[in-house]
Amino acid sequence: MDSTTVLYIAREEGFRTYALSFQYGQQHTRELESAKVIAENAGVPSHIIISLDARLFEGSALTGHSIVPENRAPDEMTGKIPSTYVPARNTVFLSMALAYSEVIGSHDIFIGINSLDYSGYPDCRPEYVDAFQKLADLATREAVEGNPTRIQAPLLNMTKAEIISKGLELGVDYSLTHSCYNPDRMGRACGRCDACILRLQGFRQNGMEDPALYSSRELRK
Amino acid sequence: MDSTTVLYIAREEGFRTYALSFQYGQQHTRELESAKVIAENAGVPSHIIISLDARLFEGSALTGHSIVPENRAPDEMTGKIPSTYVPARNTVFLSMALAYSEVIGSHDIFIGINSLDYSGYPDCRPEYVDAFQKLADLATREAVEGNPTRIQAPLLNMTKAEIISKGLELGVDYSLTHSCYNPDRMGRACGRCDACILRLQGFRQNGMEDPALYSSRELRK
Repeated sequence: MDSTTVLYIAREEGFRTYALSFQYGQQHTRELESAKVIAENAGVPSHIIISLDARLFEGSALTGHSIVPENRAPDEMTGKIPSTYVPARNTVFLSMALAYSEVIGSHDIFIGINSLDYSGYPDCRPEYVDAFQKLADLATREAVEGNPTRIQAPLLNMTKAEIISKGLELGVDYSLTHSCYNPDRMGRACGRCDACILRLQGFRQNGMEDPALYSSRELRK
Repeated sequence: MDSTTVLYIAREEGFRTYALSFQYGQQHTRELESAKVIAENAGVPSHIIISLDARLFEGSALTGHSIVPENRAPDEMTGKIPSTYVPARNTVFLSMALAYSEVIGSHDIFIGINSLDYSGYPDCRPEYVDAFQKLADLATREAVEGNPTRIQAPLLNMTKAEIISKGLELGVDYSLTHSCYNPDRMGRACGRCDACILRLQGFRQNGMEDPALYSSRELRK
């Protein structure tokens, strides 16, 4: 949902978009199937899926065989880092995007992180984005030659409800997007994990039902 | 040479070492064969080779099919960025090491970058290492919980001659190390690329011949 909305924001701003997705051992690879359909649907000129060595990202509820809790775990309620934290994930994603941006001659990286809903993730905070920007300003040939790459995180301070509202305005078809950490074998959302709960709440706050598929229709409301 | 020396420095300081090598589309994959032998020889408990998607690192003399110049290119003489610069390479390497360090419970990343000999690489400068440290201090669960990972670059301000001298003192067998960007089919060094020239000069300054294999014995001196 966030990545798709960011894609549409970048397009609205006139950018030619090169989409990057990552396979890092996440259990919910369904999101990569969704990403392909969304990129095609949006007419993205290039979408590549980067496979990463899963040995680097072990120990998360997203990459391990442990099942995501059905409801928010208590440690998430208190602002601690959720079990779905993946080691240094956004740092790896952004560093690869930085390399790729230099290869294709782009100077803008759009990333759908936001700090409000998931305040427990260290690599979703404004100060983290600032630190990556400072690194990027030193790290590449393009930066040294006066053309640094900008890290753009337009959702950083938006709530899920605001993200959905913005996306709808831009024509995003949220029925294609996948957020659930624990989909069933048909790829349908569980309606109970953190990602589902935040998403459903966002649609409710917009006075809508979520158009995505859930394992039971009751869960959508 | 640099990575091996850093490995021996970390061991001397009492660290249990987990070695990481990267296959990123470099033409001189011979260095990965050397890395395996060196890790085994040093009794490293774990050595993994991470394969990266070569599409992210195109456009360098190291990853392309263009041949490395036989002698230093003029742009290197003047301190400009060499053609062997690989887009955001150290940022990608360090970010993956950061993820891995959290997975294995380590809090120290050793990297063999040095700023003197190759002053043209943006991601080999002290200010770059500082910026990555600041990022790492914000990026991970461990950092947020008060156990940040330290980026250790003990070769940062050493010359090649000093690196070799230190390595010899620690028992490094430099005949196993590979530096050449343009080895022949037997894996022997060319003696003419930047990496060879700096390496040979380092040995000369130590009053020695380089023990590595060159395509002609004459080149070693």
